[in-house]
Amino acid sequence: MTANMLKQLLEQVAEGRVSVDSAFRRIRSLPFESLGDASVDHHRSIRQGVPEVILGEGKTPGQIVRIARAMRKAGADVLVTRADEEKRKAIRKAFRRAVLYEEARCAVIRSAAEANGKGNILVVTAGTSDIPVAEEAAVTAEFLGNRVGKLYDVGVAGIHRLLMQKEMILRARVIVVVAGMEGALASVVGGLTDKPVIAVPTSVGYGASFGGVAALLGMLNSCAPTVGVVNIDNGFGAGVLSSVINRL
Amino acid sequence: MTANMLKQLLEQVAEGRVSVDSAFRRIRSLPFESLGDASVDHHRSIRQGVPEVILGEGKTPGQIVRIARAMRKAGADVLVTRADEEKRKAIRKAFRRAVLYEEARCAVIRSAAEANGKGNILVVTAGTSDIPVAEEAAVTAEFLGNRVGKLYDVGVAGIHRLLMQKEMILRARVIVVVAGMEGALASVVGGLTDKPVIAVPTSVGYGASFGGVAALLGMLNSCAPTVGVVNIDNGFGAGVLSSVINRL
Amino acid sequence: MTANMLKQLLEQVAEGRVSVDSAFRRIRSLPFESLGDASVDHHRSIRQGVPEVILGEGKTPGQIVRIARAMRKAGADVLVTRADEEKRKAIRKAFRRAVLYEEARCAVIRSAAEANGKGNILVVTAGTSDIPVAEEAAVTAEFLGNRVGKLYDVGVAGIHRLLMQKEMILRARVIVVVAGMEGALASVVGGLTDKPVIAVPTSVGYGASFGGVAALLGMLNSCAPTVGVVNIDNGFGAGVLSSVINRL
Amino acid sequence: MTANMLKQLLEQVAEGRVSVDSAFRRIRSLPFESLGDASVDHHRSIRQGVPEVILGEGKTPGQIVRIARAMRKAGADVLVTRADEEKRKAIRKAFRRAVLYEEARCAVIRSAAEANGKGNILVVTAGTSDIPVAEEAAVTAEFLGNRVGKLYDVGVAGIHRLLMQKEMILRARVIVVVAGMEGALASVVGGLTDKPVIAVPTSVGYGASFGGVAALLGMLNSCAPTVGVVNIDNGFGAGVLSSVINRL
Amino acid sequence: MTANMLKQLLEQVAEGRVSVDSAFRRIRSLPFESLGDASVDHHRSIRQGVPEVILGEGKTPGQIVRIARAMRKAGADVLVTRADEEKRKAIRKAFRRAVLYEEARCAVIRSAAEANGKGNILVVTAGTSDIPVAEEAAVTAEFLGNRVGKLYDVGVAGIHRLLMQKEMILRARVIVVVAGMEGALASVVGGLTDKPVIAVPTSVGYGASFGGVAALLGMLNSCAPTVGVVNIDNGFGAGVLSSVINRL
Amino acid sequence: MTANMLKQLLEQVAEGRVSVDSAFRRIRSLPFESLGDASVDHHRSIRQGVPEVILGEGKTPGQIVRIARAMRKAGADVLVTRADEEKRKAIRKAFRRAVLYEEARCAVIRSAAEANGKGNILVVTAGTSDIPVAEEAAVTAEFLGNRVGKLYDVGVAGIHRLLMQKEMILRARVIVVVAGMEGALASVVGGLTDKPVIAVPTSVGYGASFGGVAALLGMLNSCAPTVGVVNIDNGFGAGVLSSVINRL
Amino acid sequence: MTANMLKQLLEQVAEGRVSVDSAFRRIRSLPFESLGDASVDHHRSIRQGVPEVILGEGKTPGQIVRIARAMRKAGADVLVTRADEEKRKAIRKAFRRAVLYEEARCAVIRSAAEANGKGNILVVTAGTSDIPVAEEAAVTAEFLGNRVGKLYDVGVAGIHRLLMQKEMILRARVIVVVAGMEGALASVVGGLTDKPVIAVPTSVGYGASFGGVAALLGMLNSCAPTVGVVNIDNGFGAGVLSSVINRL
Amino acid sequence: MTANMLKQLLEQVAEGRVSVDSAFRRIRSLPFESLGDASVDHHRSIRQGVPEVILGEGKTPGQIVRIARAMRKAGADVLVTRADEEKRKAIRKAFRRAVLYEEARCAVIRSAAEANGKGNILVVTAGTSDIPVAEEAAVTAEFLGNRVGKLYDVGVAGIHRLLMQKEMILRARVIVVVAGMEGALASVVGGLTDKPVIAVPTSVGYGASFGGVAALLGMLNSCAPTVGVVNIDNGFGAGVLSSVINRL
Repeated sequence: MTANMLKQLLEQVAEGRVSVDSAFRRIRSLPFESLGDASVDHHRSIRQGVPEVILGEGKTPGQIVRIARAMRKAGADVLVTRADEEKRKAIRKAFRRAVLYEEARCAVIRSAAEANGKGNILVVTAGTSDIPVAEEAAVTAEFLGNRVGKLYDVGVAGIHRLLMQKEMILRARVIVVVAGMEGALASVVGGLTDKPVIAVPTSVGYGASFGGVAALLGMLNSCAPTVGVVNIDNGFGAGVLSSVINRL
Repeated sequence: MTANMLKQLLEQVAEGRVSVDSAFRRIRSLPFESLGDASVDHHRSIRQGVPEVILGEGKTPGQIVRIARAMRKAGADVLVTRADEEKRKAIRKAFRRAVLYEEARCAVIRSAAEANGKGNILVVTAGTSDIPVAEEAAVTAEFLGNRVGKLYDVGVAGIHRLLMQKEMILRARVIVVVAGMEGALASVVGGLTDKPVIAVPTSVGYGASFGGVAALLGMLNSCAPTVGVVNIDNGFGAGVLSSVINRL
Repeated sequence: MTANMLKQLLEQVAEGRVSVDSAFRRIRSLPFESLGDASVDHHRSIRQGVPEVILGEGKTPGQIVRIARAMRKAGADVLVTRADEEKRKAIRKAFRRAVLYEEARCAVIRSAAEANGKGNILVVTAGTSDIPVAEEAAVTAEFLGNRVGKLYDVGVAGIHRLLMQKEMILRARVIVVVAGMEGALASVVGGLTDKPVIAVPTSVGYGASFGGVAALLGMLNSCAPTVGVVNIDNGFGAGVLSSVINRL
Repeated sequence: MTANMLKQLLEQVAEGRVSVDSAFRRIRSLPFESLGDASVDHHRSIRQGVPEVILGEGKTPGQIVRIARAMRKAGADVLVTRADEEKRKAIRKAFRRAVLYEEARCAVIRSAAEANGKGNILVVTAGTSDIPVAEEAAVTAEFLGNRVGKLYDVGVAGIHRLLMQKEMILRARVIVVVAGMEGALASVVGGLTDKPVIAVPTSVGYGASFGGVAALLGMLNSCAPTVGVVNIDNGFGAGVLSSVINRL
Repeated sequence: MTANMLKQLLEQVAEGRVSVDSAFRRIRSLPFESLGDASVDHHRSIRQGVPEVILGEGKTPGQIVRIARAMRKAGADVLVTRADEEKRKAIRKAFRRAVLYEEARCAVIRSAAEANGKGNILVVTAGTSDIPVAEEAAVTAEFLGNRVGKLYDVGVAGIHRLLMQKEMILRARVIVVVAGMEGALASVVGGLTDKPVIAVPTSVGYGASFGGVAALLGMLNSCAPTVGVVNIDNGFGAGVLSSVINRL
Repeated sequence: MTANMLKQLLEQVAEGRVSVDSAFRRIRSLPFESLGDASVDHHRSIRQGVPEVILGEGKTPGQIVRIARAMRKAGADVLVTRADEEKRKAIRKAFRRAVLYEEARCAVIRSAAEANGKGNILVVTAGTSDIPVAEEAAVTAEFLGNRVGKLYDVGVAGIHRLLMQKEMILRARVIVVVAGMEGALASVVGGLTDKPVIAVPTSVGYGASFGGVAALLGMLNSCAPTVGVVNIDNGFGAGVLSSVINRL
Repeated sequence: MTANMLKQLLEQVAEGRVSVDSAFRRIRSLPFESLGDASVDHHRSIRQGVPEVILGEGKTPGQIVRIARAMRKAGADVLVTRADEEKRKAIRKAFRRAVLYEEARCAVIRSAAEANGKGNILVVTAGTSDIPVAEEAAVTAEFLGNRVGKLYDVGVAGIHRLLMQKEMILRARVIVVVAGMEGALASVVGGLTDKPVIAVPTSVGYGASFGGVAALLGMLNSCAPTVGVVNIDNGFGAGVLSSVINRL
Repeated sequence: MTANMLKQLLEQVAEGRVSVDSAFRRIRSLPFESLGDASVDHHRSIRQGVPEVILGEGKTPGQIVRIARAMRKAGADVLVTRADEEKRKAIRKAFRRAVLYEEARCAVIRSAAEANGKGNILVVTAGTSDIPVAEEAAVTAEFLGNRVGKLYDVGVAGIHRLLMQKEMILRARVIVVVAGMEGALASVVGGLTDKPVIAVPTSVGYGASFGGVAALLGMLNSCAPTVGVVNIDNGFGAGVLSSVINRL
C-alpha cells in the first residue's frame, strides 16, 4: 500500500464510502505494505516474469521440482543453484525447456529465449579449479539479464597471462574475481581498473588454505581499495551483487 | 602513453622528427604506460586536480605534511585518513584551507570549494560507536565527488528506528552499512533494497566480538545476496568502493 | 533421603527401632541424598511418570531399545533425540505406542496421551534448513509439558515476514530463535519482545559460516540484552532451557 | 498506537472529527507504533519511572552526564554501566543522590529509595577475580527490581565450598554463574538445580584461556541442559536476561 | 652399551684381547649407546620380555601382523592400539594367544599370563561416550604392568555420582580423567585429591566442542594445579604417562 | 567426619547420649565432611605449618600483605606468585624474613630455614627468555619441599648442549620442560628419559607463536608419550604437579 | 621482445623498412614480451625437453592423459602429482614408458632414461606416516634433475637415530624435513647443519595437531634461523624449491 | 673428536700409551664431539672473526653491552637485532666503531671495514610500512657477507611499478619478499623468476590481517612453487636463510 493509497483510503473513510472496519482490517492486516512500497517484496515477488532462485543444496529433487512448478505457474523465470547431477536430471525431466549448466551446477527455466543483456560483467578466475564457482556467478548474472565475459586461469604466478588480457579488464563495468589459494588475483585486478571488483574466495587449495580462509583473508586485506568480498564459494552472491551494480 | 600517443610517436620516428634513441627511451622507460591507457596509474596520478590520499597511520606529522605539499604542488586535491589530533593540527598549521574532520580522523586540502556531487550514497550505522568508521567512509566518498547521506544508530535490536527511515534507504544508489557486534544490520538493509550494499564490520564490541570478527563473519554470511564486505574498520575502502560503484 | 527422612531415621535409631549398622549403611551408602533433597537427582529420577531422555547419537538401535525398556519399566516417559531413521524404526518395532518425529529425528514413548500444556513457547527459525534443529527443540519442550508455537522461515533479509507475525512473538512467554548463517534473527526478535530469548545457532551455511561459528558469534554479540545462547545445533538444550524458564 | 487507537482514529475520520490529512500524518509518521503495541519501544521508553541504561564505555564523563540529565528530566531511573572512577566521580558531582558501585563500575540514579524486589536471583562466582562482572550483573538485576543473592568464590576445584551452600542455590529462581578459566562451575550448578542458569564467561585467566574463550566454550558445551550463555564479561546482559526471566 | 661396558671394552683393548678395529667399530657404529645407558633406547628395545607398542592407525592388517611377528621373535610383549575390527581379526588369526579389546580398539600379545600389577591407577570418565578413549588408557596401563581401576560416567552435571565414589579416588596413586564436552571433570577430581591427575580431552561433543578443543582448553585452564594434559583422544599417552608416574 | 565418627555418633544416638536434634544438625550442617576425610580441604588447610599460596596477579600490595598476615597467624608457610617489584617490596617491608625471588617474581615467607628436600626435580629451559617461568616452577617446587635442579638454555637447535647434560636428565625423578617458540624441547627430553615430563609452553616468541600457542600445540602433539602439558606460562602449576608426582 | 629487438624495430621504422602500423601492432599486441626476456614464461615453456607438471588432484584420469599427451607432443618430460591408483593406471595404459610411484602418488613420463643428477638433496622424515609427502618431494626433485638421498623415521623422540646419520645430513646441499605432529625435527636438523632447510609440515597426527597446524606453527617458530617453510603436505613445492636452490 | 681421533686414541690404549681411565673419561665426557665434527657448533663458534648475533629484544642495554664485549674479546664480529633507540645508544657509547641502523633497529660491531660481498640478494617490499622488517633482513644478510639490493614499495595493486624493475629481479640469486596485508607479492615475484624466493609476512595491516596471519597464509598458499616462508616479521631469519642459500 503506497502513501497515495493510504490517503485515498482515508478519504474514502471520511466520505463514508469505506467502512471503518474494512479500513481497519486493511491497515491492520497488511502492516508492512502500508509503509509505502512494494520493493520490500521484490526478491519474493509473485508478479509475472520476475526471476526466482531456488537453492538446490539441502533440498530433494522432488522438492526442487515442486517449488519450481509453483513459481512457473506464477509466471516467474526460475534459476536453480547448487543442483548436482541427480537434481539437474529431475529438473530436465520435469521441464523440457530447462537449460542445464553442468560445471556451474545450475539449471534455468525460462518462458522465452534469453533476451536483453545490457550489462557487461567480466568473471575472472585464478585457476581452472575455480571455474565451477565462476560459472555459478556467470550463470546467475546472465539469468538476471547481464552480458557476461569470462577470463579463466590467469593467476598471479604467471602475471603476463593476465596482463595480455588487460583490455578485456578495462572494458568491463564490473569484475568478479574468483580465486582460491592465496587469493592475490583480486588485488592485482583491482590495481588494473577503476571499476568495482567483487572478490569470491574459493575453497580450492589444501593444508593452510583452510577451506578458503587464506583466500578470504587475502581479499579482505587487499591493498586495492575497490574490492568488495563475498562468502567463500559464493558464486551466486557475486552474480547477484555484480548484477545490481551493473543495473545502476 | 595512450595507443594514440604510441602511434604518433612511431609516426614521428618514421618522419625523422623524433630520434630512434629518444623513442626507445620513452617506450622503454615507461614500459607500462605504453600498454595503452592511463587508468592503471589513476590512483597515483600526478596530473592537476586529481584527488590523492595519504594514509596517516604510521606516518609522522612531518612526513604527512611533506607528502601533502608535494601533491599540492602537482595540483592534486589531498585527503589524509587515520590522522589523529596531533597530525590534524600539523596539517592545519601547514595548510590554512585544510578542512579537518574530527570524528572521521581525516583532513581534506582542496583548491576550490567542494564542487559537484552527482552521487547519492547513504552511510548507515548500527550504533553510535560505529560513527568514526562511518565518517571515514563518508568523508572519503564526498572527497571523491559523491553526495552522501547519513543514517546513524539504527541497529536491529530496535528495528522500528530503521524502518521509519526506509524511504531514505530506498532513495540511495549505494548503501554503506557500518556495524560492529553481530553486524546484522547489513542483512536487514540488504533485504529492504535492491541496490548494492557495502558492509563494513567494525571492531566495536568486546569478548566474543573478537575485534570485529563476529561482525565480519555475520556480514560474509548475510542471507541477503546483495552485500559485499570490506575489511574491519575499513571506512576508507568502503568510501572508495561505493564511489566507484556510484560513478558507473 | 530428605531432611525429614534423616530426622525420622535418627529418631528410629534413638528409639532402637533401627540398628546403628543399618542406619550407618543407609547414610553412608547414599552420601548425597542425605544432603537434603531430591532435586539433585531429578534428571535421572526413577520415580514413576517422570520424563527421561536418551541421546540417540553414538548408541546402537539395540542399546537405545534396551535403555528405553528399562526406563519404561520404571514407569518413565521416554524421549529419544538424535535418532536416525534406522533407530526410529527399531524404536517403533519395540514400542508400538512410540510417536516418531522424522524432521526432529526424535521418538517419544508415553503411557498416556499428551496431557497438560500450561506453557507457551514460540520456536522461530530464520530459514527452512534450520527446521530440524527447531523441531528438536519443539518436540523436547512439548515432551516436557509445554504448549509450543512455531514460526518458521522468517529470516531478517525479508524482515516484513517476521513483522507480520509480531503478535505471535508478543504473546509468547519464552522464544527460541533458531538460525544459521549470520544468526541475526536473535537480535531482531530480542528487540521486539521483553521476554527471554533462547538463541540456537545452527550449522546451516557454508564457507565462512564455519559450521555455525558465525551464527554463534552473532548471537553472543547480540545488541539485544535479553538473549541467552546454547551450543550449535543444540535444539534439545533449547527445549529444556525454555521449558525450565516457562515452568517458573 | 494500539489497535484500539487506530480504530478510534478511523472512527473519528469517518465522523469528520479528524481530518484526512491529520490522520494520514499520524499513521504515516508513526509507521511502527501503528502495528499495535508499545513494547517495541520498551527499552527506550520516555515514560516516567521507567529504568534507562547508559553504557559508560566509549563515552566521555560529560556525555554521560548530559544523557543522564535528559533521562532524569523525562522522569526515568538511570543505570550507568562500565563507568570507571573518573566517570563515577563526574556522575556523583552532577547527581548528589547517585549511588556508586565501585567494584561493579556502575552508578544508579533514582528518585526514590529502592522499592520492590519480588525476584530472587542468585549470582555465583568461581573465583574472586570474577567478582566485578558478577557485581555488574547484580547491580543491573537489582536496578531492574529484583532481589539478588550472592555466592562468591565457590569454584569447582574446591567443590565442597559450593555444596555447603546448596540450599542457597535450591532457593533461587534464576542463577547467574560467573566464571573464567575453565568455566566448569556452570555445569556443576546446572546439575544441582532445575532452575534456569545464565552463564557468564569472564576474561579471567591467562595463556590458553584466550581472553575468556576457554570459559565460553566450556559453558556452551555444558553437559547440563539448563544453561544459557551470554558474551564474555557481559555482566549487564546476564542481569537483564535473568531479570526478564525472573519477572515471568 | 653402559659405562661399565665401555670401560670393560677399553680394558680388553689395553689387554690386547679386542682389536682396535673391532673396538672402533663398536663405539663408532653405536654412537649413542656408548653414551652410557640403555634408557635412551628403552622404548624400542629388542631385549626379551620388554613391551612394544604398534600404532594400528594408518597401517594395513598385513603390516601390523608382520611387525608384531618380528617383535615376538625378539621376545617382546606387544600392544597394538587403534586397531579396528578388521585389524583385530587379522591379529587374532595370526596370534592365537592374542587378547582383543573391542571398546579400546586394542590387542595384546603376551608370552605368559598377566603377571605383576604393583600399580594403582584410576581411570575416570565423564560420560559413556568417553569410554573407548578411557579403555585405551586402561589397556595400555595394564599392559605396562599397572593395576587399573575404573570409574565411568561420573560427569559434573550429576556431581553426587562422583562424590559417592570419593574413596575410590582417594585410594588411587594416579588418576586419569577422560572427558569431552566442557572437560570440567578434571578440575573437580583435581580438587578432591592431592595425587597427580592426567587429563585426556576427548572429541566427544558437537558444535562448539570443535572436536575436543573445548575440553582441551577447559583442562589446560583447570583451577586445580595438579592437572597435566595430553592430546585430544590420546588414551595411549595417558596410559604411558600415568604408568611412568606410578612406577616411580 | 570419618566413617568411624559417623558410626560413633549413631551409637551415641542409640545409647541416648546424643540427642536426635544434635546428631541431625551435625550430619546436616557438615554435609561434605561427613563423607569421610580431610583431604578435600588440603589446599586451603588452616593447620599449622602447611604451605599456602597467594596468586599476586590482580591483587594490590595491601591485599597481599593482609592475606599473608592471616596465613602466618594460622602458622602457615606462604608463597606469593606473580608478584611484581612493587608487591615484593611491600612483602619485604611487612615480613623481614621474606625471601624474594626477582626473576621468578615470587616471595616466600617461612618460620624456619628451608628444611627437608627429599625430592629431585629437574627444570629445563629452551632459551634464556623462558627462565622467569622456569624459576616460578622451581621456587614453587622448592617451597613444597623438593630438591630442584636447573638446566637452562639447552634448546633443540643446539642439540649437543642438551646431550652433554644427559646424565643430569637421567638422574631426575621428574622433569619440567619450559619452552616457547616451537616447544620441541619437550619431545627431545621425553625421548631421553623414562621419567614423567611436565611441559610448560611459554609465551616467548612473536608472530606465528601466537602468545605461546605454537609451543602449546607442539607439546600436546609430542611424539614422546611421557609428556603432560600445563597452561601457557604456568610455572606455578608445573611446580605443584611435579611436586605431587615427586612425593609419590 | 628484448631491448635490442625494440631498438632494431624502431630503427627499421626510422629507415622506412617497417611501417608504422606494423610496428604499432607488434609493440601493442605483445605488451609483455616487449619488457625484455623469455624467463617470464619459463614454467610453462613449450620448448623441447623441458619438464612439465600436472597436478592430478581434481582432474579426471581422462583429462590427465589428454594434457600429458599434448605436453609429450611438444617434447616435454611430464610429472603427474597427486595421482591416485586409478589415475596412475590410466597413465600407465596411455604411456607404456611411464614410471609410477605408488607411495608418492606420482607418475613420470620421459623420453630418455633419467640422465644427469648434479644435485644432492636429502629428504628426512620424522615418522613413517610422513613418507608419502616425502616421496612426493623426492620424486619431484629427481624429476627436476637432482640427486636425492633419503633418511626416514628419525623423529626427535629418539634423537640418537637422527644423530647416527649426522654425516648424511652434513653431506647434503639442501635438506627437506618432512614432519607432522609437533614438527620439531626441522629445528633439530637446522641446528646440525649450516645448509638451507626446507620444512614441510604434514597433516599426520590427530586431535590438537589440527590437520598439520601444530607442525606448521612449530616450523615457523623454529629456533634455527635457516628454516624456510612450505604449505602443509606440500611435497611438490618442497621438491621444486629445494631444486631451484640446489641448481644455484 | 673425529673418527680418526677416536681410532688414534684406541690405538694408544692398545699400545699402553694412554690409560684406560683416561680414554674412558675422554670418550665419556665429550659425548657429542666424539660423533665427528665441529660444525655442530658453527653458530656459537668461539673462533676468531666469526660473526655472532645478539637478539636485543628482552635484554637490557647493559646485558647487550656485556654480551657484545665478551664476543668482541673472542674476536667475533657482532650483530645486534631488535635494538630500540635506547639500546642502540648504549651500544654506540660502548663501541665507538659500532654502525647503527635506525630503521632496521640493528647495530653492527666489526673490527675491519665491511670486506667481501660475493653474494647477490634482492630484498623487495610491498609497501613502505614493511621497510623495517626488510632492513633487518638486509642488514643481517650484509653482515653475513652478502651483496644486497633493495626494491621497496612495489605492491601488487600497482603491478607496473614491480614490472618496471623486472630486470633487477631477474639478476638476483635469492629474493626476499617482505609484505603485510594480503602478502600477494611473493606469488607475483615467484612467477617472474626461477630463483628461490624467501617470503616474510609482516604484521602490517589491521582488522582481518590479524597481525600478519593473512599475509602468512597467503604466502604459504602461494601458487608459485619456489616460495619458502619464515615467521611473521622475521627479517633476521630471512637474512640468514637467504645467506646460507646464496653461499651455496
